[in-house]
Formats: sequence, structure tokens, C-alpha cells
Amino acid sequence: MIVSALLTSVGINLGLSVLFSALYSVLRKQPGNLKVYAPRLIAEGQSRQRGHFNIEDLLPSAGWVRKAWQLSEEDLYNSAGLDGVVFNRIFIFSLRVFAVAAIIGLFILLPVNFLGNQLREIDFSDLPNKSLDFFSISNVQDGSNWLWCHFSAAYLITGVACYLLYAEYKYISEKRITYFRVSKPQPHHFTILVRDIPVHGGRSLSETVETFFMEYHPSDYLSNTVVWRTSKLQGLITDAENLYRRLTHLKSRPRSLQNQSRSGFLGLFGKNVDLVGHYSKKLEDLEQNVRLQQSDVSSRGKEVPAAFVSFKSRYGAAKALYIRQSIDPTEWVTEQAPEPHDVYWPFFSTSFTQRWIFKLVILGASILLILLFLLVVAFVQGLTYLEQLEALLPFLREILKIAVVSQIVTGYLPSLILHLVAALVPPIMKLFSAMQGYIARSEIEKSACNKMLIFTICLLFFANVLSGTVTSLLAILLDPKSIPSKLAVAVPAQASFFIAYVVTSWTSLSWELNRTIPLIGDLMRRVCSRSNDDELQIPSIPYCSEIPRILLFGLLGFTYFLLAPLILPFIMVFFCIGYIIYRNQLLNVYQPKYDTGGRFWPIVHNSTIFALVLMQIISLGIFGLKKLPLASSLLLPLPVITLLFNDYCRRRFLPVFYDFSAETLIKKDREDLNDPSMGEFFDKLGTAYRDPALMPIRHLDSDDRSSPLLSSEV
Amino acid sequence: MIVSALLTSVGINLGLSVLFSALYSVLRKQPGNLKVYAPRLIAEGQSRQRGHFNIEDLLPSAGWVRKAWQLSEEDLYNSAGLDGVVFNRIFIFSLRVFAVAAIIGLFILLPVNFLGNQLREIDFSDLPNKSLDFFSISNVQDGSNWLWCHFSAAYLITGVACYLLYAEYKYISEKRITYFRVSKPQPHHFTILVRDIPVHGGRSLSETVETFFMEYHPSDYLSNTVVWRTSKLQGLITDAENLYRRLTHLKSRPRSLQNQSRSGFLGLFGKNVDLVGHYSKKLEDLEQNVRLQQSDVSSRGKEVPAAFVSFKSRYGAAKALYIRQSIDPTEWVTEQAPEPHDVYWPFFSTSFTQRWIFKLVILGASILLILLFLLVVAFVQGLTYLEQLEALLPFLREILKIAVVSQIVTGYLPSLILHLVAALVPPIMKLFSAMQGYIARSEIEKSACNKMLIFTICLLFFANVLSGTVTSLLAILLDPKSIPSKLAVAVPAQASFFIAYVVTSWTSLSWELNRTIPLIGDLMRRVCSRSNDDELQIPSIPYCSEIPRILLFGLLGFTYFLLAPLILPFIMVFFCIGYIIYRNQLLNVYQPKYDTGGRFWPIVHNSTIFALVLMQIISLGIFGLKKLPLASSLLLPLPVITLLFNDYCRRRFLPVFYDFSAETLIKKDREDLNDPSMGEFFDKLGTAYRDPALMPIRHLDSDDRSSPLLSSEV
Repeated sequence: MIVSALLTSVGINLGLSVLFSALYSVLRKQPGNLKVYAPRLIAEGQSRQRGHFNIEDLLPSAGWVRKAWQLSEEDLYNSAGLDGVVFNRIFIFSLRVFAVAAIIGLFILLPVNFLGNQLREIDFSDLPNKSLDFFSISNVQDGSNWLWCHFSAAYLITGVACYLLYAEYKYISEKRITYFRVSKPQPHHFTILVRDIPVHGGRSLSETVETFFMEYHPSDYLSNTVVWRTSKLQGLITDAENLYRRLTHLKSRPRSLQNQSRSGFLGLFGKNVDLVGHYSKKLEDLEQNVRLQQSDVSSRGKEVPAAFVSFKSRYGAAKALYIRQSIDPTEWVTEQAPEPHDVYWPFFSTSFTQRWIFKLVILGASILLILLFLLVVAFVQGLTYLEQLEALLPFLREILKIAVVSQIVTGYLPSLILHLVAALVPPIMKLFSAMQGYIARSEIEKSACNKMLIFTICLLFFANVLSGTVTSLLAILLDPKSIPSKLAVAVPAQASFFIAYVVTSWTSLSWELNRTIPLIGDLMRRVCSRSNDDELQIPSIPYCSEIPRILLFGLLGFTYFLLAPLILPFIMVFFCIGYIIYRNQLLNVYQPKYDTGGRFWPIVHNSTIFALVLMQIISLGIFGLKKLPLASSLLLPLPVITLLFNDYCRRRFLPVFYDFSAETLIKKDREDLNDPSMGEFFDKLGTAYRDPALMPIRHLDSDDRSSPLLSSEV
Repeated sequence: MIVSALLTSVGINLGLSVLFSALYSVLRKQPGNLKVYAPRLIAEGQSRQRGHFNIEDLLPSAGWVRKAWQLSEEDLYNSAGLDGVVFNRIFIFSLRVFAVAAIIGLFILLPVNFLGNQLREIDFSDLPNKSLDFFSISNVQDGSNWLWCHFSAAYLITGVACYLLYAEYKYISEKRITYFRVSKPQPHHFTILVRDIPVHGGRSLSETVETFFMEYHPSDYLSNTVVWRTSKLQGLITDAENLYRRLTHLKSRPRSLQNQSRSGFLGLFGKNVDLVGHYSKKLEDLEQNVRLQQSDVSSRGKEVPAAFVSFKSRYGAAKALYIRQSIDPTEWVTEQAPEPHDVYWPFFSTSFTQRWIFKLVILGASILLILLFLLVVAFVQGLTYLEQLEALLPFLREILKIAVVSQIVTGYLPSLILHLVAALVPPIMKLFSAMQGYIARSEIEKSACNKMLIFTICLLFFANVLSGTVTSLLAILLDPKSIPSKLAVAVPAQASFFIAYVVTSWTSLSWELNRTIPLIGDLMRRVCSRSNDDELQIPSIPYCSEIPRILLFGLLGFTYFLLAPLILPFIMVFFCIGYIIYRNQLLNVYQPKYDTGGRFWPIVHNSTIFALVLMQIISLGIFGLKKLPLASSLLLPLPVITLLFNDYCRRRFLPVFYDFSAETLIKKDREDLNDPSMGEFFDKLGTAYRDPALMPIRHLDSDDRSSPLLSSEV
């Protein structure tokens, strides 16, 4: 790619970003869009539903930017939980580290690269038509002493990154403890999940659990809630809920429209039917069926050998959690209970061995998925080499000769396809994680986040860098000795592609800001159903796709810091835009469905360490290629030091993210002793973990008692 | 190596083994040798010190074999602890699995190999001069369908080995639980070691510990013993003890000899001195110094931030052990306390960060050690290729032309050197492990055992197989794709060497039986000092060198099972001899100094799994070389299945080897409630973990009160 192509791309994307932002500031002021742009404000009753029309509503403004900028961390915690704070810290950390990197890169490395003469004599005349390679390390002469600048920069940036990583880890782990210390008593602090309960004939599961814990934890045990096999019941309840929603919607329409539909094909033929009455009857039947099934489940004992066991204190729960309960390690397996509404009921029935097998199957499936997507990447990569594409599809030759088209195809289209493809994967990864037997949505999200991260790095980075075919990727993995030198050749070659990718991603952030897909969905719904009173759906932020996406830019920043420092300002712009946009979205749009208490941070930390080591390995290869073997040897301690630093952090901070200490738990328990509301809390605790499928279903009872009357009226 | 050379070696070694055994049966009947051959029987007062001479004492007998054979596992447990039982189970497991292997190998694989004609036409005439290669897989024709025998054998032996491994793991984990259940209350069940105690100015460490545990474990906490920095004191005490021993020895000599020595050079010149008086005075001074230091240590507070904390129940200790105590994971670090006499005091002062650094330093040192020994192996290997040796040292040519010499040099000398070199490493590995900051001798032994295992496999197996140079070893490690094919070429080539090695090892077992080095040491001492009343030193079995040595033969058995089944009968003989000899030694010689409760078994299990996978990888390569790629592909699932099996075992059994369950602990605690002797036990518990260096020293007080008198007499 040449400079002018890059500038075209920057122009297009900057323009689009500004346009989308302006559009957003107008659209969000329209009362009809409030559901899309501020669902959580509506839910919290904070949004002013202005009745009168205002000309200002049609003018773009930047008030939302100021608001998002001024948001304090305390406010962010209150609206998005500690996970939201951690998500925000990713941007703060990245901005800090890449600010330093950009200063070094632009003011030291870039001039050194440009003034090198490996590629051609220095010539300032025809800048727009210069290849971006002139700004990369490729242009520095082999064996030049200027390369020691790059060498020092590698040490410097590693030092800065490690210092900032340490500070962030410390900051977030302290935040985690502080927020636990000031938290109200919550069911999941007092409860553990016991799985693989041995079933003895004759006694019910609940009795078995009660006997066991009364025997070994007599002073701490409070109650238990056995888990039932309710997948069939859950299906019925979902049906009933859909039907109820349809019925409500139908009844909200003008009376004359209520029974417009016909019973025949596509509602066009056949006789008019009494729709409301029909649905009411159907709903009544369905609910009768649900009640029958519910009593059936509890009486006939379709029990899963698992139970939520609650204790009288947090420390009591910790004792049962961290000390192996049974002689056989595959029985009475305990784990931390999630928050009650965080429990993922569908995949609850797996046993120790089943979970183990599922884990292995999922491992295989994930590898297959990656191989499948490698094919897609191979195609996308073809686009960056126009000659290959022309050879493949000769009829495109004429079109591709037009400068704009060729620049769009090389600079914009490949990244767009990658962005779209990458958007398909998160749901699949979440399904995989769910099948692995995690019991909480948050755990599934966290596991999917890890999978997505590996997927993103493998496919968006390595597959692009290493010419994208499965065989070449395997060949490199199986020949570890040559990794540095191969990477040193391949990574710089893709610098232009990734600069284009970063620039394109600005627009994709605007998509996020405009919530394009929900907006279109909402418009469609409004046009089709001509009504506006559906249930308000408040989304939660999909960490499992967002975090890896952002971390990828960190990876790109570190790996190209030495090779092509030109990428750094574009990455800085990405993080700046992202910082504002996500703060805005966390405040207005997303509502957290659970709070892991910052447990996403270790993923960020590990990914950054990986990026650092990757950068160092590539530098090793680069200095070798550039005929400066001394620098290559002197760089060897750097990855070792980085990994040691990581090991130290793992020991120093990671335990805090997995459990709370006896000290913390006992202090909290003692505070509660003087709290008069604890009695009430313990009363509620006994029923907190009831399967929602077994809750009484009350659609008809509550507000539809009159529906038979209504239908008879018509 | 040809068949006749092998037979020579078998003859020599079998002869030596029988000779040594006969020698042993005679020597052990001599009353003077009882200290060498039955120290633990003497210590337990079980040995009959027969006074009168008996002609039978000079005739070899096999009574000890019968006795060792008939020993029940219960007896073995009583005399050698669960670790002894586990050690014995290694032989039982190996005998079982190699019995099956030998049957398959000798009756199916060996005939198939011999009847192949890849190397030459079948010719039974000149058997003694045939190369051993005729009995190996090399002789089977490329692409022959007979290779499917080998293929089936690989699956069959993997199945048998896995079944037996599972059975053993189950058996030993059950034994571990059973023995804990019937055990008496022991201090280390009630005690934990707390390290990295935060020091606050003003308060003593003991007070800090007391305050902390009284705050968070008020109902369980019993007492604490702070660890002091006593390395200087320990040196003084060792000096005093040596001096005391010397004095006792001196006084036991006839009065006339007591002050024979002179004060001058080598005791030859100068005036006669009153030795007893001199030593008594010196000892008195030394003990005074020790007492001074002891009071100094406690008063001036040279405390290590570590303490043994005892609890009123096992479950109480478990609670403090398994739940992280402090908010900061690097403070109040808890670990299981070892048995009181198992504590390794010298390296006690390391902090969290120090231990971490030491661990890394040791890792580096271990790698250096391996590289150093590779040089030795490279030399040894030269011996098997006589031509190389002749070229190197031309003056040996004439000697090497003698058939016997050449056969001894190729068949016996290399293995002998390897055996000797391997004997030097365990003490170094133990020192390394001690420096890593383990607090128990048993832990050090276990860690050293792991290191020795890696060392043994790397050096005795891989270095021999892969031509022994560092660079070639690294080249193979860095090119994983070619590992199977390279191993498939290299491993069979060394079959003769390893057959010779196995055969030589029979003799080394006889060395163990005869306790050659302690015997010589004892003789030397008796000759030199002309006295027989030294302190009785009962050795403990050095698991860290013995277990890896035995496991190496398992590794050889598995890897050569398919390639050269001729090795199997020799390995069987090794295990049979070893089974008898080690049972005998465990009964008569060694006394356990600690009991890890069978925690050596996971090492054995992992090593066997490694051997199986290695065998499978080599087979992959062999079938590829032998032009039967279908078999090679069909073999691919086998290592995967084996590793899955290992993973399952790790989850199912391994936790049992690390901790006891709440169920077990609470049951034990409840039994103790009715035990009247527990009060006494708890009284003793408070002082069980006192540093021996701080115990009152009482040599003079007890039996040497009269020494000044004695010296004034002379």
C-alpha cells in the first residue's frame, strides 16, 4: 500500500466516523429512539420524555462526549459494576502505554526508519506515492548502528508496559477487595454448588445433602435447593411467555383490528377467527400443562445430582468450598455458586465424567472452527494482492483498474470482511462454553472470552501474517527454531494490511455507538407492527466479543511498535474513540446482568504479556535478519524477564481474583452479626436458588382473568 | 553386538550376581557385620547376638530369600511405612506388566522378527555370531503384513499397562486413606507452617501470630512455635557433638592409650598432652558457648518470619491451610507442616520472593548439570564403537584385539561408567532441592526424585539414543515434526547397548545387597580405630536415587518392547532380583525417617505414562520407516487415548495424595474426642516443633560430670 491509499482510507473512515457520531447525536435526541440508545435510562426512569418538538433536536451536538468524558469511576461502578470499570481500565491502560510508545515511535524510530536507505535513496519529492515500507524498519540499512535505537526501544517499552501492568493489577485487585468489603450480603456469598452427589437408593437427594452437611458442617449449614431436570418444562414456559406477549400485543391494538387474521394460508384465506379468544384458550391450556409438569417434576423426582447449599456465614461456605468434602474426589464436588440470576440452567445435568468428555469434545470443535475460518481468511488475504485476484477472476480486471476501486478493494474490503466474519464467531464460542458445563452465564462469558481471544489472535493475526494456509501455519508451529526468523520476514510484510485494518476499525466503533443493528431492528418492528409498546429489552455488554477485539489492537500496537511505528497514531485514535464511546454506552445502553468482580482483568494481563513476548521474539528475528546478531543475543534476556514478571504477578495478584481470604470473609461475617436485617436475608436465601421453571406461573391470574369475558364480548 | 558377546556379558553378570548373593549370605551371618547388614534389627533389639562359632555360618544359604519372599504387605508397612509399600508396588506392577509383555514379545514378536529376511536369508547355523539385530524389528521386511503383529501388540500392551496403572493407583490411594484412618494422632496432622508473616514494629512475632489466629480461628487455635535463625548455633552444636563422640571414643580405649598423642605436627612430635582433659575442657567451653548463643537467639530476636501453628483439631488445621488467610497472597502463606523430625531447618529463612528466585536459579543450575553430564555420556558412548576409541588412543589397539578385552570394553565398561556417574548425581540434586526452599526432608527427597527422573531419562536414555551431543539433542527438540522418524532410526540402533546395560545392572543390584560401600567403610573403620563401639547409624532408603533407577528399566522395557523384544527377559530378571533384594533391605537395613504416605506413586504413574507415549511415538516412526503408513495412521489415536487416561487418573486419584477430605478429618477428630490420652498429646504438641538447636545441650551434665576429676587423676 502506498501513502496515498492510506490517506484515502483514513479520509473515508474519519469522515464516516464523524458522520456517524453526528448522526448519533441527532438520533438519540428523537424520543422514538430512546429505547435503542438509552434503554437503561428508561428502565431506571431517568430519561426525560420530552413531549414538544425542538429544533435543536435535529442539530448534531457533542454534549454526549462531554458527559462520557466527565463520568467518574465511582459513577461507572454504580452503573456498570466492577466489570465495567475493568473494561474501562483496558482503554486507560492502552492509552497510557501507547502514548509512550507513540512518542518513542514517531519521534525516534520513524525518523530513523525514513532516513535509512536500504530501500532507496532519500527523496522527499513524491511522498504520496511512497510505499509505507519507507516508514518501517525494512528501510534501515543492514548492520546499521541506528538499529540500537530499536533495541533500546524494545527494552524501554517492555519496562513501561510491565510497570503499568503491575500498577493496574494492583489497582484492580484492591478495588475488588474494597467493593467486596462494602457490599451488602448477597446470596452467592453464602452459597456453594455441590455436584456429583452420590445417590443412595431410598433417600431423596435433598435428604442426602441435608444429612451430609448436618453431619460435617452442623454449625454452618443452613439449607439446600436441589436442582431438577427441567429442560422440557423450560420449553413449555418459553412457549407460554411468547404466547402471552403476543396476546398482550394483540389486545393493545384497536378493537377493530384484533381479529383481522384469517385461519388459512398466510392469514389471507379462510374465515375470520376470534384471535384473542383463541390465544387466551391456548395460553390457558399451556399454563395448565406447565403446572402439571411442575408438580410432576417435584413428585416423580427427576433430580439432577446437584444442589445449591446455603450456609449461615460466608466463612462457613468457604470452608465447604475449599476443603475437599469427600474421600472420592469425583463425589461432592463443590464450586462457588453464581449470583441467583446468573445461573445457567439448561446444561445443568452433566456429571463429572460427562463434563470431562464435553471439555475434550469442545476442544476438538474449537480447533475445527479455527481451521474452517482459516479458509475465509485465505480468501480475504487474496484481496490485498490484486494481481492474484485478477488472475483468479479475469473479468474484474477492468473494474480493478479504476484507482478508487482498487484502493477500496485493497484498503477497505478485506478488513470489512474480517470484521463481519469475526462477528459471527462469538455466539458459537458461547455455545461451546455453555456445553463445557459451566453453571453461570458469567463463567460462560469468561470462557468464551478466552476462546475468542485465542481465535482472534490465531485468525486475525497469525493467519494473516503467515500467509493464511493451514499447512504453512502447521509447518511453522512444528519448527519452533525458525519461528523468530519467519515472523521477522512475515510480520513486517503485513504492516500495511494491519494499518488499514486499524483505520477501518474506527468506523466499526461508530457502528457500536449507533447500535446500527438494534436500530434497524427497532425500525423494522415499528414499521411492521405499527406499535411501540413491546417489552423493553435492556442488553448487557457482550464482553466475550468486545474484550478480545480491543486486545487485538493492543497486540498489533506492540508487535508493530518496532517494525512500523506509523501504526501507533492510528491505534491511539482507536483507543481514544473507543474510550469515549464505550463509556457512553456503559452509561446509557448496557445494564450488567451479573458482576464477576473484575475477573476479566487476568485475561487482559495475560494477553498483554503474550503481545510483549511476541514483540520480543519478532525483534530477535529482525535483528538477526538485519545483520546485528549482537543485538539479537542481548535481547534474549528480555522475554525471560517478561515471563518472570508475569509469573510474579500471577502469584502476587491472581489468587485475589479467585477467592476471598479468611480475613476478609470473617470480618464481613462479624459485621453482619449486628445487622438486624440478616434474619430476613436468611429467610430469602432458602428460596434464592429455585429454578425459575418451577416458580408459579401467573399470566392469566394476574391481569387476564377477564380474557374469557373479553373474547365472549366479540 | 553379536549373540556371543551378549552371552559373555550374561555369563559374567549372572556369575557375579550368584557370587555376591552367596557372599552376602555368608557375610551377614558374621556377628561383626550385623551393623552393616541388619542395623535396624539391632536398633529394634531383634537380632540374636550369637556368641559361639558355628560352621554353618561359613556356608552360603538361601534362607534370606525365602524370608524376603514370604514377607506380607502388612509386615512391610510396619517396617518401612507406606512409602516402602509403594516402593515394593513398583516392582509388583513392573513384573506384572512385563510378564505380559515378555509373553507377547518372546512368543509372537521375536519369531516374527527372526523369520523376517530384511537383513539376510534365514540361517540357523551360526547363531552365536549373529548380530542381535536379527532379533529386532529391523529384520522384518519393509511393508510386510507381519508388522500388524507389532501394531496389535502396541495396542495390547497399552491396554494392559493402563488397566494395571489404574488398579495400582486405586489400590494405593485406598491404602493411603486406610492408613490415615487407623493412625494415631500425630503432630503434623494438627499443625501448619505459616510463612511470610508480616512484621510490625514493637510486637514480637509470636504475639503477632497469636493475635492473628486468636482473631480469626479463636475456637481452633492452640499454640505457635516461632522459627529462629539458628544456622550459626547449629554449626556449634555439630562441633560439640563431634567432640563428644571423640571424647567418648577416647575414654573407651584402655587408660594407657588415652593420652598417647602428641601436640606437634601430625601427633608425632611435641610433648604428651592430656587428651581427655583437653577435649573435656574444649567441650565444656563449646557447650557454654552454645548455651550463651541459645539465650542470645531467643532474647535478641533473630526471628525468621515463619511459625509452626498448632490447632486443636485436624479439621481446624485444614481450615487454616486451605483457605487463603490474608488479603495479600504473599503474606501468611500456609503449608502443611511435616513430621517434627522431618523438618529441614537449615534453609528455613527464605521469604516468598527469595524462594521464587531460588527456584529459578535451581532450574538453570539443573540444566547446566545435564549439559555437563552430556559430555561424560559422549565419552562413554565412544567406547561402544571400538574403532573410534582405537583412532583416539592408538596405543590401545593391541590390547583391544584380545577378544575378551574387546567384549568387556564394549559390553561392560560403558554401562559401568554410566552406573558410577549416575551415582554422583543424587546428592547434587538433593542439594538443589534443598535450596529451592522445601521445608521437609521428604519434600526435598520427592523433588530430588523428580529431578533425578528427568536427569536419568535425559542422560541415560535420550543422550545415549541421540548420539549424545548437546547440539544434536537440541536440534531434535527444536524440530518436533521429525521426532518420530528420528527416534525410529536412533532407538533401535542402541538396542544392544541397552540390553548390555540391563544385564550389567544385575550386578549393581548385588552391590546394593552387599552394601559394598558401607561394608568397606565399616571394615576400614574397624581396622583403623581398632574399636567397635561407634554410634549405630541406621540408614534410610534413598528413594530419590532408587526410584528413578528402577523406572528407567520400565522405560527401557516399554520402548524396546516392539523394537527388540529380546530385552524383556533380562528386564524381568532385573525386576525379580530387585523385588527380593529390596524387600530384604527394607526389612533388615533401612529404617524410614519419614512417611510421605505413598506420595511417590504419582511420580511412578507419570513416568510410566511417559514411557508408553514414547513407545507409541517411536512406533509411529517405525511403521513409517517400514513402509506401512496405514499402521502409522491407525496408531495416532493411541497416544491421545493414553494421555486422556492419564488426565482422568489425575483428576480421580491425585487429590487424594495431596490432602485429606473434610469427611476423613472430621471423623478422625470425633474419634479423638473420646480418647483420654489426647490431653497429654496436646501438651506435647506445643513443643513438638522446637528447633533442635534450641534444645538444652546436656553432654557433660549427663555422664561426664566426672571428667574434670578424670583428667586431674592422670
